[in-house]
Amino acid sequence: MQTTILDKQLNFLREIDRLKTVVRQSPLLDKSRNENSAEHSWHLAMYALILNEYACGTVNTSRVIQMLLLHDIVEIDVGDVPIHGGFSGELQAEQESRAAVRLFALLPQQQGNEFLSLWQEFERAETEDAKFAKALDRFQPLLVNVFTHGGTWAENGVSLEQVVSRYGPAIKRGAPLLWAVCEQWVTQHFSEQALRVSGMQKDSKG
Amino acid sequence: MQTTILDKQLNFLREIDRLKTVVRQSPLLDKSRNENSAEHSWHLAMYALILNEYACGTVNTSRVIQMLLLHDIVEIDVGDVPIHGGFSGELQAEQESRAAVRLFALLPQQQGNEFLSLWQEFERAETEDAKFAKALDRFQPLLVNVFTHGGTWAENGVSLEQVVSRYGPAIKRGAPLLWAVCEQWVTQHFSEQALRVSGMQKDSKG
Repeated sequence: MQTTILDKQLNFLREIDRLKTVVRQSPLLDKSRNENSAEHSWHLAMYALILNEYACGTVNTSRVIQMLLLHDIVEIDVGDVPIHGGFSGELQAEQESRAAVRLFALLPQQQGNEFLSLWQEFERAETEDAKFAKALDRFQPLLVNVFTHGGTWAENGVSLEQVVSRYGPAIKRGAPLLWAVCEQWVTQHFSEQALRVSGMQKDSKG
Repeated sequence: MQTTILDKQLNFLREIDRLKTVVRQSPLLDKSRNENSAEHSWHLAMYALILNEYACGTVNTSRVIQMLLLHDIVEIDVGDVPIHGGFSGELQAEQESRAAVRLFALLPQQQGNEFLSLWQEFERAETEDAKFAKALDRFQPLLVNVFTHGGTWAENGVSLEQVVSRYGPAIKRGAPLLWAVCEQWVTQHFSEQALRVSGMQKDSKG
């Protein structure tokens, strides 16, 4: 039986169902469980829809949303690589590239090439659209960590300086106004944490 | 302290995190658990991106994607109402309308009105964009049921006629070519099921 264009498209849509089973480091805001990469992608698309006025350059929101919808599907093959894990960026990039080629090749050729090229644009983070998409992909987990009183930072013993160096450049580059808010949150979060630690030390001595 | 435009937008984005905890009737394709409404919304947006050529009329894919990203957020207040549950359509529509008003009012006024109006357009299913979005919202769970050998149909004792009457009109109206594929799947699914049942009856008599 001949494989039609629609067969290929439906095969791809079935394959990416697996993104729902890729578990990220970040918790949900109610801390009931960790977030998965499919619902994370939905949330980021909503961030782009709501916050596009804070993009540094002139962006095409529709393209930013498309990038964010498909930016993580390589994790179907590679898994989620945590920002605080100390993993090799080069090895990860190579594995993710291979995954992108495999997954988008499931689609009819022209469509597959178009999405592969959009995914590569996101990864290179050079265009205005990609810079804004990358900024949101850092901003959302930072927000989650702040609003869950530490989240993955507390678990991994991450310092203020590490937060600034790991999240700052991408957010500042694509959405400087959002980074200004992040700086306030992060400074306050780590001051409160320092107070809590010093309180606990006093208690244990008292 | 004055609530800024950004405060309102971030408050909305935090509130809709709860869509990740709304569990639907449909399983994932690997049957490991049921799908939630946030990852369902992501998947539907991907369906719109990949399958827009099958829309009955001329559609603006970007608007269809926006509709699908936010079509289910009313479930944060109302929960997922199963298609096979026999619930009152009128009561559900009223509760969902109230939820849409509450949720979009969290946003700055102009932005909130814009999304409320997009949500209402989806619900009315009269424009080409909304008809296609509605078709995909029926097509995706039908596909899941077929590819999990029955899914929610098996659980609810749903017949071929009920599948045709509950999914058919919306899919046929917005994406007739996709409905043609569904008809083949559904006919085959229920024939195989009938064969299985008749085989089991023979076994129990033999």
